[in-house]
Amino acid sequence: MGEFELIDRFFTRKARQALVGIGDDCAVWMPSPGHQLAFSADMLVEGRHFLSTVTPRHLGHKALAVNLSDLAACGATPRAFLLSLSLPRVDEAWLSGFSEGLFDLADAQSCELIGGDTTQGPLNIAITVIGEVPSGQAILRSGARPGDDVYVSGHLGDARLALEAFRGDISLPQVTFDLARRRMETPTPRLALGVSLRGLANAMVDISDGLLGDLGHVLKSSGVGARIDLPSVETLMLATASWDCPRDCLLRCVLSGGDDYELLFTASPAHRDQIQAAALATLTPVSRIGVITSDPALLVLTEDGQTLNSTYHSFDHFASR
Amino acid sequence: MGEFELIDRFFTRKARQALVGIGDDCAVWMPSPGHQLAFSADMLVEGRHFLSTVTPRHLGHKALAVNLSDLAACGATPRAFLLSLSLPRVDEAWLSGFSEGLFDLADAQSCELIGGDTTQGPLNIAITVIGEVPSGQAILRSGARPGDDVYVSGHLGDARLALEAFRGDISLPQVTFDLARRRMETPTPRLALGVSLRGLANAMVDISDGLLGDLGHVLKSSGVGARIDLPSVETLMLATASWDCPRDCLLRCVLSGGDDYELLFTASPAHRDQIQAAALATLTPVSRIGVITSDPALLVLTEDGQTLNSTYHSFDHFASR
Repeated sequence: MGEFELIDRFFTRKARQALVGIGDDCAVWMPSPGHQLAFSADMLVEGRHFLSTVTPRHLGHKALAVNLSDLAACGATPRAFLLSLSLPRVDEAWLSGFSEGLFDLADAQSCELIGGDTTQGPLNIAITVIGEVPSGQAILRSGARPGDDVYVSGHLGDARLALEAFRGDISLPQVTFDLARRRMETPTPRLALGVSLRGLANAMVDISDGLLGDLGHVLKSSGVGARIDLPSVETLMLATASWDCPRDCLLRCVLSGGDDYELLFTASPAHRDQIQAAALATLTPVSRIGVITSDPALLVLTEDGQTLNSTYHSFDHFASR
Repeated sequence: MGEFELIDRFFTRKARQALVGIGDDCAVWMPSPGHQLAFSADMLVEGRHFLSTVTPRHLGHKALAVNLSDLAACGATPRAFLLSLSLPRVDEAWLSGFSEGLFDLADAQSCELIGGDTTQGPLNIAITVIGEVPSGQAILRSGARPGDDVYVSGHLGDARLALEAFRGDISLPQVTFDLARRRMETPTPRLALGVSLRGLANAMVDISDGLLGDLGHVLKSSGVGARIDLPSVETLMLATASWDCPRDCLLRCVLSGGDDYELLFTASPAHRDQIQAAALATLTPVSRIGVITSDPALLVLTEDGQTLNSTYHSFDHFASR
């Protein structure tokens, strides 16, 4: 199968919102009046962002999900994406599973594949997503204000736990492993919550490199600090329901796990009721875990008010670990 | 050097047109009123799209140039791009050269880097470009009409000649090799010509996979055929000025060379004067090489009116050759 047949067979569908979709030099597309555009790009490499054990279907889901998560973190609505794919060989079963996982999520979010590229080479998946947000309503990292509550959506740490199990660093009961693996391989981009936080959240980021690392980006961009309540964070790992996680492992996973694709956001305490309503309306768990401070330090406080001596770092793709 | 320092040092610049540039979850950007957006994505892999002998500076240029060429082929004006980069290691000299080549071209075309991703892995460069075109004026592959003239910009075949020399398949005089190599490594996207053909060209494509292959895309999309005048095409290889190219090599290079990044377009004979004026105004050579026919065949005719029995195929990234 050649390049063009591959594209035709697995990736070309009738253009919907796009004026010109796949098959010309460019996709042509009309933005909605009164909206700004949000763009994000993520590249996935085997061994760094996924393991060889992942099914093609889950990989297709995840490749788009991590990109959509960036749109969610701005409060943007997904509209379209471009996919560049480098493949060692044409493997029809792989392409079939990958494209199904990709399009299932794309269709669920009305996000149209409008272009891209395929080539032969080491497996590499590069996606650019395009979203829209009403002008001036994008939620940035730089808007956190002293006194803001700090929230996270969903659950933290399970993806990291799965990674440690795959590496053989820990051993998990099967039910716990299955759950953690699902969290790692099929993350849920929190798009509905992100949109519903427009006008409520002052700052937002998605947690891809770990809670403390990504919170650190918000603090630095906003010129503020934070106090994080450790007991509120410790309960966020799903796996602890079926497995008694050692404390050091628990802290490492929830504080600096990475691959969570949950939203971290800050909002005025005046909006607490509206935020709980948004969480309910979008069926997304939301937990209040701390407060923004004018002092620029990031402190994690234990139950008895002591500062956790944190050595938990965020994920760095060029660090060796 | 970590991921964030790498981005800061080599790729982060003050946002210009972008409302939010590099450093948030998404770039935020306002499209111009009355315009449609054109998107294209190209992924470059070592050994497929470039050789290990290319300098980082030329590679930075080429990675963006091949993407801009797609915008040129729609008559779009470049506005912004996203860069996803997978690197085996942090090599400061490489990054410095690569980013210089990239930004020199980006600045010359007022195309702003607004986002992207970096990770560790086999060298891979994935770029998505965003351009604008006044609504309804994008030039597509599907607009060719019987009776249209067929044109190409610039020169054809030299990049393929350089590739054959690098592979050791042919031997070139140094001056010829240097010229061919420059054509291969630093292609010129024909953006000014592309924009000036709005309202003149009926169909357009950029020649990345070879003249016959890319013309074939236009013919198929438009439901037409073409007669190409071989003598008009044979003169398009620059290298023949300094080297007597064997005929088979010449035909292979100009008809199916690939990596040319010239524009191929069709236009009514009524526009001949305007097209020559556009070529002059944009300092871009333009050659008339044939005519569009209602018969859907693609014929290449020799000087004495005979049909060339063509076995020249276009480049396929999954074909083995």
